[in-house]
Amino acid sequence: MERTKFILNENEVPTSWYNILADLPEPMPPVLHPGTGKPIGPDDLAPLFPMALIQQEMSSERYIEIPDEVSDIYRLWRPTTLFRAHRLEKALDTPAKIFYKYEGSSPPGSHKPNTAVAQAYYNKKEGINRITTETGAGQWGSALSFGGACFGLEIKVYMVRISYDQKPYRRIMMETWGGKCVPSPSPDTKAGRDMLAKDPDCPGSLGLAISEAVEEAVGRDDTHYSLGSVLNHVLLHQTVIGLETRKVMMEKADVYPDIIVGCIGGGSNFAGMFLPFVKDKIDGTKPDLRIINVESTSCPTLTKGPYAYDFGDEAGLTPLLKMYTLGHDFIPPPVHAGGLRYHGMAPIISHLYKLGLVEARAEHQLGTFKAGVTFARSEGIISAPETNHAIKVVIDEALACKKSGEAKTILLAHSGHGHVDMAAYEAYFAGRLKDYDYPKEKVEESLANLPKVD
Amino acid sequence: MERTKFILNENEVPTSWYNILADLPEPMPPVLHPGTGKPIGPDDLAPLFPMALIQQEMSSERYIEIPDEVSDIYRLWRPTTLFRAHRLEKALDTPAKIFYKYEGSSPPGSHKPNTAVAQAYYNKKEGINRITTETGAGQWGSALSFGGACFGLEIKVYMVRISYDQKPYRRIMMETWGGKCVPSPSPDTKAGRDMLAKDPDCPGSLGLAISEAVEEAVGRDDTHYSLGSVLNHVLLHQTVIGLETRKVMMEKADVYPDIIVGCIGGGSNFAGMFLPFVKDKIDGTKPDLRIINVESTSCPTLTKGPYAYDFGDEAGLTPLLKMYTLGHDFIPPPVHAGGLRYHGMAPIISHLYKLGLVEARAEHQLGTFKAGVTFARSEGIISAPETNHAIKVVIDEALACKKSGEAKTILLAHSGHGHVDMAAYEAYFAGRLKDYDYPKEKVEESLANLPKVD
Repeated sequence: MERTKFILNENEVPTSWYNILADLPEPMPPVLHPGTGKPIGPDDLAPLFPMALIQQEMSSERYIEIPDEVSDIYRLWRPTTLFRAHRLEKALDTPAKIFYKYEGSSPPGSHKPNTAVAQAYYNKKEGINRITTETGAGQWGSALSFGGACFGLEIKVYMVRISYDQKPYRRIMMETWGGKCVPSPSPDTKAGRDMLAKDPDCPGSLGLAISEAVEEAVGRDDTHYSLGSVLNHVLLHQTVIGLETRKVMMEKADVYPDIIVGCIGGGSNFAGMFLPFVKDKIDGTKPDLRIINVESTSCPTLTKGPYAYDFGDEAGLTPLLKMYTLGHDFIPPPVHAGGLRYHGMAPIISHLYKLGLVEARAEHQLGTFKAGVTFARSEGIISAPETNHAIKVVIDEALACKKSGEAKTILLAHSGHGHVDMAAYEAYFAGRLKDYDYPKEKVEESLANLPKVD
Repeated sequence: MERTKFILNENEVPTSWYNILADLPEPMPPVLHPGTGKPIGPDDLAPLFPMALIQQEMSSERYIEIPDEVSDIYRLWRPTTLFRAHRLEKALDTPAKIFYKYEGSSPPGSHKPNTAVAQAYYNKKEGINRITTETGAGQWGSALSFGGACFGLEIKVYMVRISYDQKPYRRIMMETWGGKCVPSPSPDTKAGRDMLAKDPDCPGSLGLAISEAVEEAVGRDDTHYSLGSVLNHVLLHQTVIGLETRKVMMEKADVYPDIIVGCIGGGSNFAGMFLPFVKDKIDGTKPDLRIINVESTSCPTLTKGPYAYDFGDEAGLTPLLKMYTLGHDFIPPPVHAGGLRYHGMAPIISHLYKLGLVEARAEHQLGTFKAGVTFARSEGIISAPETNHAIKVVIDEALACKKSGEAKTILLAHSGHGHVDMAAYEAYFAGRLKDYDYPKEKVEESLANLPKVD
C-alpha cells in the first residue's frame, strides 16, 4: 500500500523563512508615499509596525531566521501533514498523483497563524502591548487573537459590522483567545463616528475597518497595526508552508510537483506555498513547473485587472503598492469565499505574474462548491470556500491528465477547513448560490479612481 | 528544548483493536431480552446489526484485526498526535507533565469516525446499503455520514428537531458527506407520525429519534441501524486511540501515565483511550494507575446512579443493559455538552467502575468552560464543551501536583475541537450559562420506571 501521509520530524522543520526578494530576476517596483509619490522608507512605516517587520519587508537576505519563541508556538501544529490524495485520484479515475499540504490543523483552522504568531512576537519584543487590526469574515481576526494569546498582547479587532452580526462564530473564537472584537463602524474612532453620524445602520466595509484600526494604532504609542496578507513580510512568514512541503516532498515522498495550485485573495497563503518552489523556475532548475493562482470570477484581480499603483485599502490611507488591482474602492459581488474578495494582490505575486513566472485562473463559485463536495466525499476534509477554488482547478488538471494519459504530480495548497463556513455549504445545497460574471462596469468605475502616479 | 509532539509512523499504527472482554477479572453481566428477561443471542440483534459487529459485541478474542479497508480510511487522519502540553504546564506553574492525545483532527473533528467508518464497512460487506441512526447535536450523525461516504452507503439520520432547527452546522456537514438528515419526529415512521399527530410542534428527543431509526431499520431488509456509543463493539473500535497512545507514550515519549482523564457521555471516547491501559491495572503491572471518568453534574450517571438493568433508549425498545443509569426516561438539564447528556453508561465502563478499577467525578459546566478557555489560551486548541469537562479535571490534578510538589504524568483524552460549538462559548462569555445541581427529584422519578428484572 502506498503511503498516504508524509510529515517531517520535529527536528527537520525549517529554521528560517525564505525571502524571494533575494532571488528575483528583476527588483520589485518601490512602494510609494501617498502624499509625495516618492519611495517610502522605514520611518514612514514606524507608527504602524515594529522595526523588525519593516526590515523584513525590505530585506534582501535570502533566509531570515525564525525566532525560537515563534518556532515554539509553530510546534503546536507544525509541521503540517502532506497528504497523498489516493481516494480523490480513484474517484476521478486519473493517472495524476495528487498531493495536498493541509493548513487546517492549526488552532484557528487555517494558514493565518503562521504570520499572526510572528507579528505578535515582533511587536511584543519591541515593547508593544496592543495591536489593532481589521477583519472581514473573521479568519484573520481570530488568528491574530490566537497570536496575541501566545505572547500576552491585547488584540483589538474591527470587524465589518455585517459579518459581526451574521457570522458570530469567528468573533467568539477571537474572544475565546482573549481578543476584543468590535463592530465597524464603531464609536471608538473618528472615522467610525463620522460614518455612524451619517448612517447609524451602516453595514461597514473592510476599507472602513482598516481606517479605524490604522487610526487607533497611529493615535496610541502603545499600539501598532497588523495586516494579515498582501505585504512582503506576511508572505515571508507564510513560506514556512512551502519550505516544509518542498522538503517533505523531495526527501520523504521522493517527488517534485509538475503543477502547484492555490487560491489567492491577498495572496499570502499561496505565495507561502509556491515561493520556495518558484525559485527553481527562476534559476532554471525546473523550467516546466506550472504555478496556478486561482481567484474568484467575482474578484478577478490577476486575470482582469491592470498592473498599477493603488492603495492597499479602500479608504486610501496606506502607501501605494504596484500590483494587479480592480481599484481600491471596488466592492466585489457577495461570493461566500470572503477571503478572495480583496481588490488588489500581493506585490510579490503581481511582480511574478508580470514576469510570466506564475499563471492565473478565475473560477465561478458553484463549480468550486461542487469540487469541494467531491473532495469531502473522497478525502474526508470539508474545506473552506476559498480552498474550494483551488480544489476545482486541481480536479480539472487531474481530469486533463485522464484525457491525455499523463501521470502528472499536482500539489494543492490546502489553506483550511470549512467547519465555520457551513452556512455557505447550506446555501449551495439549498440552491441559493449563484455565479457572478466578471463585474466589468463596476471595475471600470473603480479603475477610474486609481491614484495618479507620475 | 523538550519535544512537543509525538506521533507514530504510518507503519507503526495498530493493526488490531483491543477487546477488554478477554481480560476482565469477572465476566460482564449478560444483556437481557426486554420481553423474556433472558440473555439475548446473536439472532436477536440480526435485524439491526451485521453479524460481524454482533460477533464483536460478544467476542472473547483479545485482539480483533482491523480490516485493510478500514485502516485505509483511518489513514486519512490517523495516527493522531500526542502532544506534551508545555504551555499549559507553564501557565499553571505545575511540576506535572501533561500530555493529550488529540482526536479533533479527524474530518468531522472528533473521535466518532473511529467507529463510524468500521460500522459502515461491516454493513457494506454484508450487503447492506442503508443505515439509519439518530443524533442529538449532530456529532454522531456527521461522523456516520462521513463513514457512509467512504463506502458508498446511504445514511439516514433522525436528528432531534430542536437541534435540527437550532444547530444547522452539523446537519450541513452530514449533507456535505451525502447523508440525509430529517428532523425527528418525522412523518417517515409510525413513531414519528403518532407523535406529530399528538403534538405537531414536538421538539423531539433522543429517545424518539432512536425509535424512528430502529423502526425504519427493522422494517426494511436493505437497512440496518447504527449506534455511536455505549455498546461493546463501539468501544472496541475506539481502542485504536488508546493503543496508539500507549505505544507512542512508551516508545517515543518514554513515559507512562500516572493519571488518565477523559469525559464520558455514553463512554466510547474515554473507554477507547483507557481500555488498553486498564489491562495493566488488571494484571497488576500498574496497580497505582488512576483512571478518572468525568461526567456532567447535570447527568451524573456513575457518581449518582444505581448499577441496574435499564433500556439503552428512552423509548424502551432496546435490549436491557446492566449499567449505571439515571433511568431511561431521564432528561437532563440543558447543559451545552450535549454529548454528556446520556442517561446510561457503557456496560464495560459500568462493570469496571463497579470493580473499582476506574474512578468518576462530576463537574459543573461553568468551571469546565473556564478550564477550556485556559487551555485555548495556552495550547491553542478550542475544545468541544464535552472535552472541557476532562480539561477541568486535568487542571485540578495539575494544580494538586503544584501543591504537593509531585511531577505526575497526566494524560488527557482530548475528544475533539469546538469550532462547531462556538454558540456555547458565546453563551458562556455573555454570562448566560449557569450551573445545574444534581437533579435529584427528576432522577428519582426516572428510577421509579426502571424495568423489573428478576
